[in-house]
Amino acid sequence: MEGAKIYLPSLSLDCVIFGFHENQLKVLLLKVKNARQWALPGGFILKNEDVGKAAERVLRERTGLSEIFLQQFNVFGKPRRSDANFHRQLLQKDGVEIDNDHWLFQRFVTIGYYALVEYSYVNPRPDNFSDECTWRDINDLPELMMDHSQILNKALETLRAHINYHPIGYNLLPEKFTMPQLQRLYETILNKKLDRRNFQRKILSYGILKRLKEVQRGVAHKAPYLYSFDLRKYHKALKEGLQGGW
Amino acid sequence: MEGAKIYLPSLSLDCVIFGFHENQLKVLLLKVKNARQWALPGGFILKNEDVGKAAERVLRERTGLSEIFLQQFNVFGKPRRSDANFHRQLLQKDGVEIDNDHWLFQRFVTIGYYALVEYSYVNPRPDNFSDECTWRDINDLPELMMDHSQILNKALETLRAHINYHPIGYNLLPEKFTMPQLQRLYETILNKKLDRRNFQRKILSYGILKRLKEVQRGVAHKAPYLYSFDLRKYHKALKEGLQGGW
Repeated sequence: MEGAKIYLPSLSLDCVIFGFHENQLKVLLLKVKNARQWALPGGFILKNEDVGKAAERVLRERTGLSEIFLQQFNVFGKPRRSDANFHRQLLQKDGVEIDNDHWLFQRFVTIGYYALVEYSYVNPRPDNFSDECTWRDINDLPELMMDHSQILNKALETLRAHINYHPIGYNLLPEKFTMPQLQRLYETILNKKLDRRNFQRKILSYGILKRLKEVQRGVAHKAPYLYSFDLRKYHKALKEGLQGGW
Repeated sequence: MEGAKIYLPSLSLDCVIFGFHENQLKVLLLKVKNARQWALPGGFILKNEDVGKAAERVLRERTGLSEIFLQQFNVFGKPRRSDANFHRQLLQKDGVEIDNDHWLFQRFVTIGYYALVEYSYVNPRPDNFSDECTWRDINDLPELMMDHSQILNKALETLRAHINYHPIGYNLLPEKFTMPQLQRLYETILNKKLDRRNFQRKILSYGILKRLKEVQRGVAHKAPYLYSFDLRKYHKALKEGLQGGW
């Protein structure tokens, strides 16, 4: 098998790419050819390749996306998470000659990566093994193959925990934004409504925002203030947590 | 080779077990037989074994420790992190017949786990491949094999970032403790002095402590207050972060 010659055995990686745009949270999925299921963009590690670089390459090859900051978040290592039968059926439908030692029939431990991007900036394209590569709404997901919905849920849980103590929004919002825009970003990721006054009090207490002298134009009555991130404090809070280090 | 028959290829795991006791932070290390280097307790994953269970088994077999809550924290996947020459020399010194296909000569991607325990509660013992299994002071470490000092440093960085937004101390301090005792735990992990008043103000603001009616006995002048953790709030903060969820 080609796979066995060029890739590390037993190891794969899967990427959960969340996309935010106009108050919607989506995730990038590939429609598996010859099956009704969808899949996370994933792949294997070349025998002499750095694991992090492999994740970047896999994402680029399968979706056309590059320069996305991928964060390793969890290893999925249950013995029965690989599904040889599923792969056997796909190969049969594709007319591939089947050998019980086929590369895809082994047990794979998979390394999960995630990212959050502004999805109007990126233009995904499918690879040869998929019919489609599309942003799907997080609240209306299709059936996923193997344990990919577990991987997706764990990534979402990690993202939601992350924003409890780290800032978010840079590269997702315009450079100047209003408090309601920022609040809707949080509400979209958390999938719940937040109290306007509590949100404003809390986010301002972290000191990562600068209130600008200008206000939003084209608004009839009381024009809302515009804010931008104080990038020095934003990056400090990314590193140390929102309430600062000890 | 025996290894190739029973273990998943290409994958290993390493455990960084931090121990706290009487204001010292230590790490559990094994002295490698026939070499001057020390190593983290590590090992391999059986072909049909859950990865998390493998970490528990490896730690138990190599050190005698069980029921330690291991937290997966990072995958180390540089192509040249394995060191075939180092292993070749060890095997030579041990009189093992050497085969270039030896199990240990392959490239391993390793999964890092860490834990923090009260080290007087645990009694480590070495396995057959080590001369010693000992708690070593974090500020006075011996030479470590391969990339084990990088793995250790990354675990320490993860632990220090973790306590910026999660509570710590339960199972490390007595049930009732004074504010100075709690402060010294933080100072020991962070390896720096903290301002007494700032520390007290900040830790009290998180609402995870209960001030008890009793004071510490046997103290000459002003007896310090005793505290215990409010476990409901402590566990909530473990999950959502110290300043609470959005």
